[in-house]
Amino acid sequence: MNTIYVDNNATTRVAPEVLEAMLPYFSDLYGNPSSMHTFGGKVGYKIKEARAKIAELIGAMPEEIVFTSCGTESDSTAIWATLESYPDKRHVVTTRVEHPAIKNLGEHLSKNGYRVTFVPVDRQGSLDLDYLYNSLSDDTAIVSIMWANNESGVIYPVEEISQEIKQRGIVFHTDAVQAVGKIPVDVKSTGIDFLSISGHKFHGPKGVGVLYVRKGTKFSSFMIGGHQEHGRRGGTENVASIIGLGKAAELAAQRLSVYGAKVRSLRDKLEEEILARIPNAMINGNRDNRLPNTTSISFEYVEGESILLMLDEFGICASSGSACTSGSLEPSHVLRAMGVPFTAAHGSIRFSLSSYNTEEEIDFIIAKLPPIIERLREMSPFWHEAAVAK
Amino acid sequence: MNTIYVDNNATTRVAPEVLEAMLPYFSDLYGNPSSMHTFGGKVGYKIKEARAKIAELIGAMPEEIVFTSCGTESDSTAIWATLESYPDKRHVVTTRVEHPAIKNLGEHLSKNGYRVTFVPVDRQGSLDLDYLYNSLSDDTAIVSIMWANNESGVIYPVEEISQEIKQRGIVFHTDAVQAVGKIPVDVKSTGIDFLSISGHKFHGPKGVGVLYVRKGTKFSSFMIGGHQEHGRRGGTENVASIIGLGKAAELAAQRLSVYGAKVRSLRDKLEEEILARIPNAMINGNRDNRLPNTTSISFEYVEGESILLMLDEFGICASSGSACTSGSLEPSHVLRAMGVPFTAAHGSIRFSLSSYNTEEEIDFIIAKLPPIIERLREMSPFWHEAAVAK
Repeated sequence: MNTIYVDNNATTRVAPEVLEAMLPYFSDLYGNPSSMHTFGGKVGYKIKEARAKIAELIGAMPEEIVFTSCGTESDSTAIWATLESYPDKRHVVTTRVEHPAIKNLGEHLSKNGYRVTFVPVDRQGSLDLDYLYNSLSDDTAIVSIMWANNESGVIYPVEEISQEIKQRGIVFHTDAVQAVGKIPVDVKSTGIDFLSISGHKFHGPKGVGVLYVRKGTKFSSFMIGGHQEHGRRGGTENVASIIGLGKAAELAAQRLSVYGAKVRSLRDKLEEEILARIPNAMINGNRDNRLPNTTSISFEYVEGESILLMLDEFGICASSGSACTSGSLEPSHVLRAMGVPFTAAHGSIRFSLSSYNTEEEIDFIIAKLPPIIERLREMSPFWHEAAVAK
Repeated sequence: MNTIYVDNNATTRVAPEVLEAMLPYFSDLYGNPSSMHTFGGKVGYKIKEARAKIAELIGAMPEEIVFTSCGTESDSTAIWATLESYPDKRHVVTTRVEHPAIKNLGEHLSKNGYRVTFVPVDRQGSLDLDYLYNSLSDDTAIVSIMWANNESGVIYPVEEISQEIKQRGIVFHTDAVQAVGKIPVDVKSTGIDFLSISGHKFHGPKGVGVLYVRKGTKFSSFMIGGHQEHGRRGGTENVASIIGLGKAAELAAQRLSVYGAKVRSLRDKLEEEILARIPNAMINGNRDNRLPNTTSISFEYVEGESILLMLDEFGICASSGSACTSGSLEPSHVLRAMGVPFTAAHGSIRFSLSSYNTEEEIDFIIAKLPPIIERLREMSPFWHEAAVAK
């Protein structure tokens, strides 16, 4: 059975070109870039190259790039660095739809002496900007707003928001883990001080991330240790993965426009056909302002987990909400924040495409999904109750 | 020119068997273990296997193993988790010879409201245990002592010390990054609560580490985010590297006794020949109680960096002190703590072997090193002054 992988917001295939770039750095050129010998120094040079490639992808300078172990570490570093740099400020602003890396950190802070504002979103997943700006005060240390949502794909106007925040002298962080490699990201003319990237969301390896730190932004290390990353992140460099991430950045830069057009057309076809063939289905999130690869669809009166299991029998890999909150029976916090009705939120499926997906795969999903939903609804007492009520 | 790599305390070659185990998990089986589909689930199973292998290597239970991104993260997690669990205790005890991951964190804490005791060592690198035990009080939250020193190779009696510390109700952490895979490590009958491991120090990949957390030990996350690692470490699992680390643990367990005998005999030969052929050379650290693969040798009146550069011309990769403190012109803090005279500390070289080294390589170093030292001494005004003084 073929695998049809449409769960690319959870993780992606390492591009073969990326793996090829990494391979020499495991068993052959395995030196430590901090070592004082040519064998280590060569590796240091490749890390420099990777840093330049990542910088180029997001319009930054190489010295503004700090390699980390993942998006979560990048997020944590930005928040803790700022709180340590401004010890008198005890207010943090974020949103109700962040990834658990920020959401759970925000909840942790709110139990540990900080005041945390979680800005709400509307039914389309759009931020309440008045609520955001009204929440700011002299006590606000940092505002953290994701660039694009991992579940709904909704894109937030972080370029504009960051300018507003900057003017008020407040630090701005964006978790751009779902944006980088999928849509153009350029920090240059924004007010963004910190930006988080994860390698494995755009065909780089797992276990490596980036924190962009704007020159001049106050910083203190989260991972205290050796002198690596110019003293900003201790720990021996994850050489092969950093080199792989550099290659992934290079590929993303080359392919971005083609990627957008291709996955958008496949995603739109998938969405339109599903809506045409399946009653009581709805798209979650503002359709005009989303990542090109993502669709979150609610099927009323069925369980998302059951849909996933039945899709899985056909080799179709999708997701109900975020992989990072799986294991919980609660509906996704993102869909709840958007006010998706309980009967629909429970039956939500996220399809997230990549440029490796083909039209044949999309046609296969379109053929297999309607009978799955129909069968599950036949088994659902809620579906029958709803039909009677109508 | 062949590379003769004798810098294995800085980093090691990824064993070919380890790389082979990792390879399927980049571009083929690239699922997210948190995903609700078979494609992700399969990967989750492999992580479970790796966890069991690491546990077996150190006599732990699989549920006591938390995967991290490196030894530095493991160290930070142990210290911060304990300080958060015991908010009223403001005293930390460690040693003067720790790796920068603990040393610099200790210095950071001492500037941020904590009292930190750095236990001294003697000329042989052995800990002053009276000083250690006398420093403890009701205010002591944690004692952190490395299992083996990265520069001198001196092994510390952490099994015994941890029992003493445990009896006093204080948490015990050991940075065992240089010990695991080189000497037998078994946490079972010790008082060790936390133990740090780094994959790339024993032929696993860079960018992955482990924190052993004894069952029942108070814990709170350092990396706050998703539910991964049973809620103990957020961030998508570094799948390929974790699987590689599992394989490295399996190999280390199989090869430990052979490793010890082989590298010890090569190391001893290297040491004896160097001492026999080069005047004013001395071994740093207790020769009876060291890692089998490590020797730190001081050559009076020459610069370690110059020796390294000249060794490098022959393809010999060694180190002066720790790779993690390179870039600094200060002599190593470890050698200073041991009271190695300034004229000798500056001219110290660490050779750290692995089981990939051959007798021919050792013979090559023995042949090349004496003329290097002789030439450098000819150029050294200090050497001539010392000769005159005698």
